[in-house]
Amino acid sequence: MQKKAVVLLSGGLDSATTLAIASAQGYDCYTISFNYGQRNQFELGAAEKIAAHFKVVDHLVISIDLRKIGGSALTSEIAVPKSQKLQENVEAIPVTYVPARNTIFLSLALAWAETLDAFDIFIGVNALDFSGYPDCRPAFIEAFEQLANIGTKSGQEHGKFKIHAPLSHLSKAEIIRKGVELRLDYSLTHSCYDPSEQGIACGMCESCLLRKKGFRQAGIPDPTTYQSLEEV
Amino acid sequence: MQKKAVVLLSGGLDSATTLAIASAQGYDCYTISFNYGQRNQFELGAAEKIAAHFKVVDHLVISIDLRKIGGSALTSEIAVPKSQKLQENVEAIPVTYVPARNTIFLSLALAWAETLDAFDIFIGVNALDFSGYPDCRPAFIEAFEQLANIGTKSGQEHGKFKIHAPLSHLSKAEIIRKGVELRLDYSLTHSCYDPSEQGIACGMCESCLLRKKGFRQAGIPDPTTYQSLEEV
Repeated sequence: MQKKAVVLLSGGLDSATTLAIASAQGYDCYTISFNYGQRNQFELGAAEKIAAHFKVVDHLVISIDLRKIGGSALTSEIAVPKSQKLQENVEAIPVTYVPARNTIFLSLALAWAETLDAFDIFIGVNALDFSGYPDCRPAFIEAFEQLANIGTKSGQEHGKFKIHAPLSHLSKAEIIRKGVELRLDYSLTHSCYDPSEQGIACGMCESCLLRKKGFRQAGIPDPTTYQSLEEV
Repeated sequence: MQKKAVVLLSGGLDSATTLAIASAQGYDCYTISFNYGQRNQFELGAAEKIAAHFKVVDHLVISIDLRKIGGSALTSEIAVPKSQKLQENVEAIPVTYVPARNTIFLSLALAWAETLDAFDIFIGVNALDFSGYPDCRPAFIEAFEQLANIGTKSGQEHGKFKIHAPLSHLSKAEIIRKGVELRLDYSLTHSCYDPSEQGIACGMCESCLLRKKGFRQAGIPDPTTYQSLEEV
């Protein structure tokens, strides 16, 4: 019997690459997405297509309205910052930070893993590009892994949960090269924080800028359609 | 300005007592309840009444369908065990365990606390009565507190989250005595895992048996109406 893995899949570039990696490592993959009131509802459709592309065993969408909690540009009226180029070496945590988001998402992935008798959970966090987000750092992933083994029946009785963060120390360009090597079709993925009503990426939010830069540095054509500057 | 606290409130005896304690300690209390597909939907109404009784600043109900994840008698077709008396010294984790439930609930409480600029979170876990549940033990609470301070913007920049579990080492009788001392009206609370359609406690699930025993040992009349044995 193959080992099972639960993979957090947002529909973006990083989580799709993470699924490609888990799949290539031979896991039977179970993907989980969250409808949390995010501005970009197109990423849920992208996640579904990516899950189908990788022939996952099951794809679960959990709805949880984080707009009731607020505190982020992604789930409230706070505007998503737009710029023509990435700001370098910014230390502050951006307004697109969603309070405790990865803690919430990993908790739900953990619950599902426990029900499935899976002990491997994959998450596409990245400590380089999103150094501002505290819940993308290796120390957070380690702390969650500890918690998972203390706070569950399976962790106590049957085995040891492992939280895999295979992109943790890769640059965006390295992530893209890895995905292309694993035959991931990036046109299926959706990174924009604030797309148009038709689902066209804005091209000017931090996530679009990082994506563009990644493809440029990898020397790989970016398959994404972005809104022209006039439309934004 | 008074300090703010987020209090997890299920509508049961333990969480209501925890709110009474947080309130008596002078916190401005914000209560959070979860509609997670539990069999006992009456506890959500109980939570609302208890929140009103203690004049909390805000009461938030978050819906999250854990039936999609399953794995517990409280959220699936697995039957809730019924008995005439409590089983003593049971080491195994009961089927009423919900995978990663307190991790999920604390994550959401943490997100709300971060949005509110609150650093104190109260949870009514008990390490004596529910020794079988791994996510009710002090080691779990400590691990979550660490995670909260590593994985959030507030924990990194502004202060230190503290997870309070004031009932952790109290017996049910001690909890009830404490609540009565703080003028908590236990007729507002609802403990049953599997009430009738009219919301009458079954009197024979583990939670009802622990409640009955608690009042008996405290020497305080139990205000709860239970179904008669013939009805169960």
